[in-house]
Amino acid sequence: GKEFTVDWDAASAEKGGFPSFMEKEIFDQPAAVADTLLGRSDADGRLTLDELRIDAEELTKISKIVVLACGTSAYAGSVAKYAIESWCRIPVEVELSHEFRYREPIVDENTLIVSISQSGETMDTLMAVRYAKEQGAKTMSICNTNGSTIPRESDAVLYTHAGPEIAVASTKAFLAQITATYLLGLYLAQLRGNLFQGQIKDILADLGKIPSKIQDILDRSDEIKELARSMADASSVLFLGRHVGYPVAMEGALKLKEIAYIHAEGFAAGELKHGPIALIDDGQPVFVVVPSPRGRDSLHSKVVSNIQEVRARGAKTLVIAEDGDDSVKDFSEWVFYVPETPTLLMPLLATVPLQIFACELASAKGFDVDQPRNLAKSVTVE
Amino acid sequence: GKEFTVDWDAASAEKGGFPSFMEKEIFDQPAAVADTLLGRSDADGRLTLDELRIDAEELTKISKIVVLACGTSAYAGSVAKYAIESWCRIPVEVELSHEFRYREPIVDENTLIVSISQSGETMDTLMAVRYAKEQGAKTMSICNTNGSTIPRESDAVLYTHAGPEIAVASTKAFLAQITATYLLGLYLAQLRGNLFQGQIKDILADLGKIPSKIQDILDRSDEIKELARSMADASSVLFLGRHVGYPVAMEGALKLKEIAYIHAEGFAAGELKHGPIALIDDGQPVFVVVPSPRGRDSLHSKVVSNIQEVRARGAKTLVIAEDGDDSVKDFSEWVFYVPETPTLLMPLLATVPLQIFACELASAKGFDVDQPRNLAKSVTVE
Repeated sequence: GKEFTVDWDAASAEKGGFPSFMEKEIFDQPAAVADTLLGRSDADGRLTLDELRIDAEELTKISKIVVLACGTSAYAGSVAKYAIESWCRIPVEVELSHEFRYREPIVDENTLIVSISQSGETMDTLMAVRYAKEQGAKTMSICNTNGSTIPRESDAVLYTHAGPEIAVASTKAFLAQITATYLLGLYLAQLRGNLFQGQIKDILADLGKIPSKIQDILDRSDEIKELARSMADASSVLFLGRHVGYPVAMEGALKLKEIAYIHAEGFAAGELKHGPIALIDDGQPVFVVVPSPRGRDSLHSKVVSNIQEVRARGAKTLVIAEDGDDSVKDFSEWVFYVPETPTLLMPLLATVPLQIFACELASAKGFDVDQPRNLAKSVTVE
Repeated sequence: GKEFTVDWDAASAEKGGFPSFMEKEIFDQPAAVADTLLGRSDADGRLTLDELRIDAEELTKISKIVVLACGTSAYAGSVAKYAIESWCRIPVEVELSHEFRYREPIVDENTLIVSISQSGETMDTLMAVRYAKEQGAKTMSICNTNGSTIPRESDAVLYTHAGPEIAVASTKAFLAQITATYLLGLYLAQLRGNLFQGQIKDILADLGKIPSKIQDILDRSDEIKELARSMADASSVLFLGRHVGYPVAMEGALKLKEIAYIHAEGFAAGELKHGPIALIDDGQPVFVVVPSPRGRDSLHSKVVSNIQEVRARGAKTLVIAEDGDDSVKDFSEWVFYVPETPTLLMPLLATVPLQIFACELASAKGFDVDQPRNLAKSVTVE
């Protein structure tokens, strides 16, 4: 047999054999989601978020939630908006922390501020949380770093258990953040009686199946990597989604900007005809995140029409669809199927192929995906 | 002397001597704003929006405003959010019509829906308004087309008086929409007692000065056109703004997408460090909309730092600043000064150079700016 000389240094050991921290962290995601769910509900499907340090009665009085975050964390907030509004019937606004502070926002003691920051040290978010607290709002932190400043200064905290994230571009922390917002939404629905306990139990069961479904996607990552390598010379890539697929599209575009330095932009698919479709030219690559055909049919059929529209104008359509959705095949240059899951949970799956795509494309271009130019892991200045 | 043979056809006559409807409509903007203000207040600065057809008492009960719109109109809504929240202390959410309908939004009889549509026939917005009405919300239409469907189906209407807009890419309708939302904000502040009558009168006086300030910008359009022609080969342009400058940046980018087919993207300047700054490379053109240095100093100084940051990474910085703001000169390749105005009204001025830029750049590329590919003037299908 052959002999190998292996030159392990400390970093590559920590990478667990992966070529980059980012790729390792993408592959950590089944564990990141599972660990964030762990120990937060009992066998009856009752949420037990004892760590929250906020009075249950006070939470039932909440009339509005404002999510404060920047970058990728803000997209986790956008996913949360759909889920929490649907489960709890509380209006949720998602605000960029640096914009929130400067517009005299309207918050009061019945506003719950949910800040999302991987590091817990994002300066703009910290300042926004302090401002909201001064106005009398309740503040809750969703954070991946124990004992960091934002959770310390917040009334409540829900830690994500993604483990340390080393790569600058966030992956597993994003999925863990989304998971944490789902737990928060279900907890509020339980406290306020918006959902029956059986419904909550069912959603928790669906969440419990997510890690193995992510693993299924990871096991088929070669399909995605091959596409990414073939597109290393692309000068721009567009991403379309509707409903919870919209923040997924935004996040897919942001990953590509961050590490591959490609002009990538995400759009709500419904905006296409209001401007962006003018950009579509022969060969323009367009990712489309297709909602489940098992959900409200109108949404699915509208996104399928969007695929047809951009394709008719020459776009190269790259589609993320749900297992068994044959309707997209005829209009797609490439389709990647993700396992079935309820619509509101879909971002935990549909994001993963886009992360793999960005990571592999940037690697194919020869870039350091862990340390992209101009970016720092945690933005601790304003 | 020379002799000219002039070949006027009907269309060019309607263009008033301008090479395109779009350019004509950009130059119509002093009148569009003035006509939208006309007859809507008395000599004491009291708003008299009798046409609204909605009970004043009902309007005082409003606890939330949701703006529904698509494309450019949604950016008018984002500007309105800053102004109305500041003047009336009512929370304002801006929602894309096609997203709103599909996420089980939370609205009730104390919600005022403000839809914005130039044509009054935008199908997604019409459907969203119908949905909100079914939920019991009050509905108000801001519209440029008398007797069109959305105002007909709404409880109240505030017409913009921009005159017919022929070019597909909206310009004068946008400024008229912003003006109308200001009138609405001031009217609500008057009804609810959020501002003193003297304050309202002062803001109306500032609004009254806007048309001549726009004219001042138009009179210096050659400076902008020269820049645009020199950039006809640019493959991407970025736009940064904060606060009310953020939707201005978004609109500047959208114009360029729509008619010049250039990958243009607008960002909240505070997002830079959270990802987009990785895109900045040698020679990347970046427009920056700088707030007045007379406003809150922290905002101005932060945007000036953003200019320095992107410039340090090689960006070609193109700056829109207020008359007399010398602080930006050392960090800018090009500066265009707009007349002084209160911060909240600034979009009515800062947008204009970006419109002229897009129109001239697209013309220099030889495109039909009035009829961009793939786009229709009014999106009457879903």
